[in-house]
Amino acid sequence: MTIISILDLIGTFVFAISGIRMAAKKDLDIFGAAVIGFATAIGGGTVRDILIGSESITWIGDMTYPIVILSAIPFTYVIRNRLDDINKPLFLFDTIGIALFTISGMEKALAFGLNPFMAGIMGMTSAVVGGIIRDILCREVPLIFRKEIYATACLMGALIFYLGIYFEIATNLNYVITTGVVIGIRVAAIKLDLSLPKMKV
Amino acid sequence: MTIISILDLIGTFVFAISGIRMAAKKDLDIFGAAVIGFATAIGGGTVRDILIGSESITWIGDMTYPIVILSAIPFTYVIRNRLDDINKPLFLFDTIGIALFTISGMEKALAFGLNPFMAGIMGMTSAVVGGIIRDILCREVPLIFRKEIYATACLMGALIFYLGIYFEIATNLNYVITTGVVIGIRVAAIKLDLSLPKMKV
Amino acid sequence: MTIISILDLIGTFVFAISGIRMAAKKDLDIFGAAVIGFATAIGGGTVRDILIGSESITWIGDMTYPIVILSAIPFTYVIRNRLDDINKPLFLFDTIGIALFTISGMEKALAFGLNPFMAGIMGMTSAVVGGIIRDILCREVPLIFRKEIYATACLMGALIFYLGIYFEIATNLNYVITTGVVIGIRVAAIKLDLSLPKMKV
Repeated sequence: MTIISILDLIGTFVFAISGIRMAAKKDLDIFGAAVIGFATAIGGGTVRDILIGSESITWIGDMTYPIVILSAIPFTYVIRNRLDDINKPLFLFDTIGIALFTISGMEKALAFGLNPFMAGIMGMTSAVVGGIIRDILCREVPLIFRKEIYATACLMGALIFYLGIYFEIATNLNYVITTGVVIGIRVAAIKLDLSLPKMKV
Repeated sequence: MTIISILDLIGTFVFAISGIRMAAKKDLDIFGAAVIGFATAIGGGTVRDILIGSESITWIGDMTYPIVILSAIPFTYVIRNRLDDINKPLFLFDTIGIALFTISGMEKALAFGLNPFMAGIMGMTSAVVGGIIRDILCREVPLIFRKEIYATACLMGALIFYLGIYFEIATNLNYVITTGVVIGIRVAAIKLDLSLPKMKV
Repeated sequence: MTIISILDLIGTFVFAISGIRMAAKKDLDIFGAAVIGFATAIGGGTVRDILIGSESITWIGDMTYPIVILSAIPFTYVIRNRLDDINKPLFLFDTIGIALFTISGMEKALAFGLNPFMAGIMGMTSAVVGGIIRDILCREVPLIFRKEIYATACLMGALIFYLGIYFEIATNLNYVITTGVVIGIRVAAIKLDLSLPKMKV
């Protein structure tokens, strides 16, 4: 198992937790929490795979994903009183998660012959669509449309990652730089209270 | 036509009715009712077919489905004053519907080479996603996340059905047992007011 | 570039504007507006392509679409104070848009071997699903379920278009007649305040 695939599973785990917490806030039962955790964790990759015409969806046939996702339920329950204490590592892993989902989504799209612009869109799709599905299922206006420079961080990461490929930077270094850029933008956006201008019409 | 395919069409018909009734409650016009009836009846099978990578979606190219679904509109209208009288048979057919959708979804997924766990998830997907789409289109928090041990009955049915395959029980008998288990769980859940514990975080 | 493909891009552009305006009304930022404009413009064609089993999604790999869609953002911003003045041409282009999306969706579905009824459904899907996705993302009850004989105009257009094929009318003439019928029905529905009867159950 490579470091990348371990971090990818950590991203999946953290995404599942965000779905489960939202489900709990909405007073759903354990089954609802499992479905929403699942949808949050695999939604982005699934939509990407369908759009790029992949013959099979990543998580189908790979039991690691459901095991990781379902194990997020007892984990979230056990640490429920300490969730506030671990907000910072959760935030960090979540940001690493979207960085890695962006990278792996982009790599897959490039392998399917998409041009860099479309591949970047697919990378962002992998990272953000799970959260959009979570918010629709829970009847929230998707968070991504309202707060934080979340998707912008993904797009910038996709740009940096592609530049890394273009200038033939070593792949592992490229992973690290891209993830660093995504984390940097997101942290800066929160610390400096940056946000995109409203669309005024 | 086999008994299974007849029951499958009855399930489709009953699912369409549930979509049409929800549309009527939301004050939609006939077209809206038709679309929501359609989406409720074929949503689950469509998502399953997309996820398992089936080359064609079941209902595309089979006119039986739209005929059955569209005929649910005049039917629902004609019996509108007697719907309360037929709540029990509707409930029964609905439960038979989710049992059969679970079974047929699972069989298709197994035929596509999915492992039993994933096939069970796909069986449940076939049975419940139509209702989730109906509720999203009508801006309700999906019923399945709030009430009745609905999806749990599907999952238990999937488990029983797989055990039946494993122990090489005759297929028709396996259908009957599985459907019985799903009906039993759902009826018991309502009579005994069972529900899954809330996810508390 | 044919006249049809130019009108198709105008339709895409107008659909994107409708998404962007809705996003602005919901107080979203520029990124949210871009995503919702994109989803509105390409949603219908994407769902159609997935349902008919097309190997690739139309807009993936064709940079014209994102360029047209993204250019709708500065355009909408620049003319924001004059949007009321151009409501009539916007309405006209929107109606031409749904007519052309219906036609092109139907042609693609027929080319994939669907029967005329299913091809008509796929034509309507191409025309209306983008707006449904826009409304779900913005937490509105889909407009199409509440107002205007919108989808009915698409279905009538699909019927006329198929009759044109059946009676071997010249293709360009068939385009013009179909678009005229769709525009006529929609204008008549608004002028005469026509609407479909409510589904009363």
